[in-house]
Amino acid sequence: MRLRFTKMQGLGNDFVVLDGVRQPIALSREQLRRLADRHFGVGCDQILLVEPAPRPGVDFRYRIFNADGMEVEQCGNGARCFARFVHEKGLTAKREIRVETRGGVITPRLEGDGWVTVDMGVPRFEPGEIPFLAERRSLTYALEVNGAVREVSVLSVGNPHAVQIVDDVDAAPVEQEGPLIERHPRFPQRVNAGYVQVLDRRRVRLRVYERGAGETLACGTGACAAVVAGIQRGRLDSEVAVSTRGGELRIRWEGEGRPVWMTGPAETVFEGEIEI
Amino acid sequence: MRLRFTKMQGLGNDFVVLDGVRQPIALSREQLRRLADRHFGVGCDQILLVEPAPRPGVDFRYRIFNADGMEVEQCGNGARCFARFVHEKGLTAKREIRVETRGGVITPRLEGDGWVTVDMGVPRFEPGEIPFLAERRSLTYALEVNGAVREVSVLSVGNPHAVQIVDDVDAAPVEQEGPLIERHPRFPQRVNAGYVQVLDRRRVRLRVYERGAGETLACGTGACAAVVAGIQRGRLDSEVAVSTRGGELRIRWEGEGRPVWMTGPAETVFEGEIEI
Repeated sequence: MRLRFTKMQGLGNDFVVLDGVRQPIALSREQLRRLADRHFGVGCDQILLVEPAPRPGVDFRYRIFNADGMEVEQCGNGARCFARFVHEKGLTAKREIRVETRGGVITPRLEGDGWVTVDMGVPRFEPGEIPFLAERRSLTYALEVNGAVREVSVLSVGNPHAVQIVDDVDAAPVEQEGPLIERHPRFPQRVNAGYVQVLDRRRVRLRVYERGAGETLACGTGACAAVVAGIQRGRLDSEVAVSTRGGELRIRWEGEGRPVWMTGPAETVFEGEIEI
Repeated sequence: MRLRFTKMQGLGNDFVVLDGVRQPIALSREQLRRLADRHFGVGCDQILLVEPAPRPGVDFRYRIFNADGMEVEQCGNGARCFARFVHEKGLTAKREIRVETRGGVITPRLEGDGWVTVDMGVPRFEPGEIPFLAERRSLTYALEVNGAVREVSVLSVGNPHAVQIVDDVDAAPVEQEGPLIERHPRFPQRVNAGYVQVLDRRRVRLRVYERGAGETLACGTGACAAVVAGIQRGRLDSEVAVSTRGGELRIRWEGEGRPVWMTGPAETVFEGEIEI
């Protein structure tokens, strides 16, 4: 089949975006993996499949697939690209778009400057909701990793995160330890491993080892999780600038029970057509 | 400017191919780097720019740029993609195509099965021609790398190569040592660092650290250089199957003063259009 696609990026986290509204698209896991392959396909961190609203009250559904072809709940950078995409393709004229994802309904809003603000939903901390194996909820947890013990915040922002506060994010063992945390037995559905360095109460630096994707230049939900964890641990104010290797994001959270707001860039890189 | 391009690959060595025949194309080094960037651009190992014949006696010129925007002499996998490209785009109907590259004139030939055979030119061994700093020509050279001494064959197959024979290519220190050999002071224009494992007289396994690109899945000129070095050192017959991480190539060489012939696959992956 001949497939038209749009390549987009948000902070260097890059996506193949497919319009499943104007045409039904059903791809096998093997086709998804090939699309994401950087040498034999288009190449991307994740594939975003935009679909018609599955029910009243939402404007679209969108589905997210990692480079390994596995469907995942949510991706913050992807949500911003989604909002730009449906506007640029003329699929909607609304600036505030309700979209159903596997991780819940989100509502990205196109700002005047082209940045996109996303309501990332209300963070969840109950171990069973993440899911995380723990006897009871706690501010932080001691996680055994390869013989060492790491102090982690564990929460869900649509998808599960384990966040460590480190002195120097450049020296953090993201590549070595990230895969061990990702597949730690206490996370039955695996987890994203975040490393955050607090510069001051309104600025942090972040690296994330993403579940199924490895370290990426920027992870939107990872930025949300890191800021929420930092606020809970008394280290951050309610609005924080997050520096990642791919660029800047702004994260806002007013406290437990409230949603996390994320604002950042999203760009179309190129248009393409592939036989798959 | 809005640029149409074709993404191609040969053994996983991947290229953005540009038609500079139907439209003049002049890109800055910064634009080339952006095109090659896998997150913020199209992403590729190298960019191939096909241009009209600069003089009688050749059918085209094609230029090759590494991911860092630097123009290089020649790339074997690129030559095969070039031949498929000019056919698929209807730029020629010839099956044997004379093309001027910065490394000299080459003559790729489209085989019936879609594989492409390329006359890679006559290997050169004189140190001054490579260029390599050595008092006199020798079968192998002792190269000091980070305190250790490596026995390398040094030759040019359009571009310079330093080839080591190793027991196990999977265990070869390609990522650690490759960059040191690439920028070794005895190679004034840098060098490609090859690691070849001889399975028998007609089969080898190969990894190459490419100048300006890092380790790639397959390097066509690297395969030529490795086989020529193995033949000269008495370890290989004149026709050899080369396994790389990207797939198979066939290399043929009849001895000094004769050209190297390379046969292998080349595929179009997708078509695209980018604002650059």
